[in-house]
Amino acid sequence: MTPSIAALDTPCALIDEARMDRAIARMQQRMDSLGVALRPHVKTAKCIEVARRQRAAGARGITVSTLKEAEEFFAAGFDDVLYAVGLAPQKIAAAFDLVRRGCRLSVVVDSVAAAQALAAAARRDGARIGTLIEIDVDGHRAGVAPDSPLLPQIGRLLHGAGLLAGVMTHCGASYECRGEAALVAMAEQERARCVAAAERLRAAGLPCPAVSVGSTPTALFARTLEGVTEVRAGVYVFHDLVMAGLGVCAPEDIALTVLGTVIGHQRDKGWVLTDAGWMALSRDRGTQAQPLDQGYGLVCDEAGGVLEGWIVNQANQEHGIVEHRRGAAAAGDVEARFPIGTRLRILPNHACATAAQHAGYAVIEGGRVQARWPRFNGW
Amino acid sequence: MTPSIAALDTPCALIDEARMDRAIARMQQRMDSLGVALRPHVKTAKCIEVARRQRAAGARGITVSTLKEAEEFFAAGFDDVLYAVGLAPQKIAAAFDLVRRGCRLSVVVDSVAAAQALAAAARRDGARIGTLIEIDVDGHRAGVAPDSPLLPQIGRLLHGAGLLAGVMTHCGASYECRGEAALVAMAEQERARCVAAAERLRAAGLPCPAVSVGSTPTALFARTLEGVTEVRAGVYVFHDLVMAGLGVCAPEDIALTVLGTVIGHQRDKGWVLTDAGWMALSRDRGTQAQPLDQGYGLVCDEAGGVLEGWIVNQANQEHGIVEHRRGAAAAGDVEARFPIGTRLRILPNHACATAAQHAGYAVIEGGRVQARWPRFNGW
Repeated sequence: MTPSIAALDTPCALIDEARMDRAIARMQQRMDSLGVALRPHVKTAKCIEVARRQRAAGARGITVSTLKEAEEFFAAGFDDVLYAVGLAPQKIAAAFDLVRRGCRLSVVVDSVAAAQALAAAARRDGARIGTLIEIDVDGHRAGVAPDSPLLPQIGRLLHGAGLLAGVMTHCGASYECRGEAALVAMAEQERARCVAAAERLRAAGLPCPAVSVGSTPTALFARTLEGVTEVRAGVYVFHDLVMAGLGVCAPEDIALTVLGTVIGHQRDKGWVLTDAGWMALSRDRGTQAQPLDQGYGLVCDEAGGVLEGWIVNQANQEHGIVEHRRGAAAAGDVEARFPIGTRLRILPNHACATAAQHAGYAVIEGGRVQARWPRFNGW
Repeated sequence: MTPSIAALDTPCALIDEARMDRAIARMQQRMDSLGVALRPHVKTAKCIEVARRQRAAGARGITVSTLKEAEEFFAAGFDDVLYAVGLAPQKIAAAFDLVRRGCRLSVVVDSVAAAQALAAAARRDGARIGTLIEIDVDGHRAGVAPDSPLLPQIGRLLHGAGLLAGVMTHCGASYECRGEAALVAMAEQERARCVAAAERLRAAGLPCPAVSVGSTPTALFARTLEGVTEVRAGVYVFHDLVMAGLGVCAPEDIALTVLGTVIGHQRDKGWVLTDAGWMALSRDRGTQAQPLDQGYGLVCDEAGGVLEGWIVNQANQEHGIVEHRRGAAAAGDVEARFPIGTRLRILPNHACATAAQHAGYAVIEGGRVQARWPRFNGW
């Protein structure tokens, strides 16, 4: 008999296996129906077992946010890896080293300076590494604009060294969209601008085989992905309250929770204190800017049922303060309702940030722990 | 020759050894002059080497926020440990196990229910564990009010099982004080209310040998600690921007920084992108509510000199966006000033949260790495 979750020490990160499997299947089916490859971003779970599920469902290659992830996943047999953060010159040697050991690593640049550094190193070492130019489709973060004169310049620099592999973008602005129409429009903006960049390179006589876009919201709201070759998405594997706030999923779809234990109360204030503070939940307050602020997370009972109105409203390092959204009057007698020792589960604002606070996951199904999966952190 | 910090992979957490040693000496001298013992809270650094420095300077015992910390520090020879988070019934067995192995562990309760659970377990196992009653001095979090009828009731329950060791409080509200007068008043409130709770127990015929208070701001602003036996403080060992915003330290006193590398720019916006995102800095926005919002951290050059006006204004998982506080016009030509590959160091909002994002520290002195110290996380 597998152990009950009642036997777990708290705080502890739980994966609801059925919910995760459904999320993996849903995203894969969607990408299949749109005719593009799915290259999951494994930064969310940083867990070999999770990535194996994604691969088994049909994913082609993985996306990583650190070279440490590239190393760990390559060691576990994932040899098609896109490192999707602009490559610092100091990291070129480590990237080439992965390639020499057989990893099909690709990297990203968005400036003449970075392209020059990479091209010079490639010529010096006689090495080749597939390189994507990052495109700015939303003014959100990195990348060159599709109509920037820098784009063909960077393209020629990379192509001259035999490195140019295509273009990529991440539409981070999708996290600020409100409503389905805005998400559909943002997905189309991401697609159209990234494809325009690819066509501009091709018009300049440069090759652009890969056209890589992605974010969980745009992946799920894109109506067409014409011209796109692959989609990268990460957080969909667990989902979270930010995604629920965007309408990308329901709270009941969220596969990651943090299990905590009630350690005290302030009855007059309607406070329930737990041992799941920000060290277990992360400091992420991603729902703060959304219409429904979920504090540090939405509270569920031990079986995972949402306790309507109850959120972690304050968090210290190892204390979470659970309160009713409408205050002490709505909370009732918290000592009677949530006695000391009660187990609660917290749905996270941001799965990537919450998962990163833990060394591994307890994988649960039907109230029992089916497996323990390690994850890693660091660089 | 020790390696230069230029050779470090980024992002990386750095400890400025001289600043840390000064902070340790300052706090110890202050506690010595006030005639109380210092029991540092090791949750900030979670690092054996740091705690050894504190002990060598005169600290007596340590404070921990998890039983994992108790285990790790006990294994390293720290055998006088206060676990300062209300004890969940499910953790009683692990706490007793530490005691049986020779650890002088003390624990904290603030309710009749928790005291009953502990007393029952102690009677059943024939075990003894020093137990402090947590006192609420500021309405901030846990604890019973000094004048609550629950206080003598809990005291009698614990004393009946031979467990009562005293009272303790943490004055978290000190983090919201503005100005020296408010901090001095809050320190006195913390002292007076905790001492009042001790006197109330004694008046009821109960023993109360330990009177334990503490937070870094109140420790440094207390004018007298009459009636107090020990002070607990944690973040002083590194300090951070929240402490600087309170006037507890200067930015130049902060011993913890995160080293990052410039990976790109958005010149028109005055943005400098680095590889130190929230994974390296944490999501803590503790200065958001202070008069000077430092974003995700204040930027320094590689040598640690503050670059006035430059902060990490936005953060994604592995991207930090450095901007001038006054915007693009004040930023000038960011590509010329911060070329790709430039190293920057970020002063953290909250040292406990930022340090927790790292597996260890590079200990630096004069631009060179003197040592690598591991830290641990988890529960």
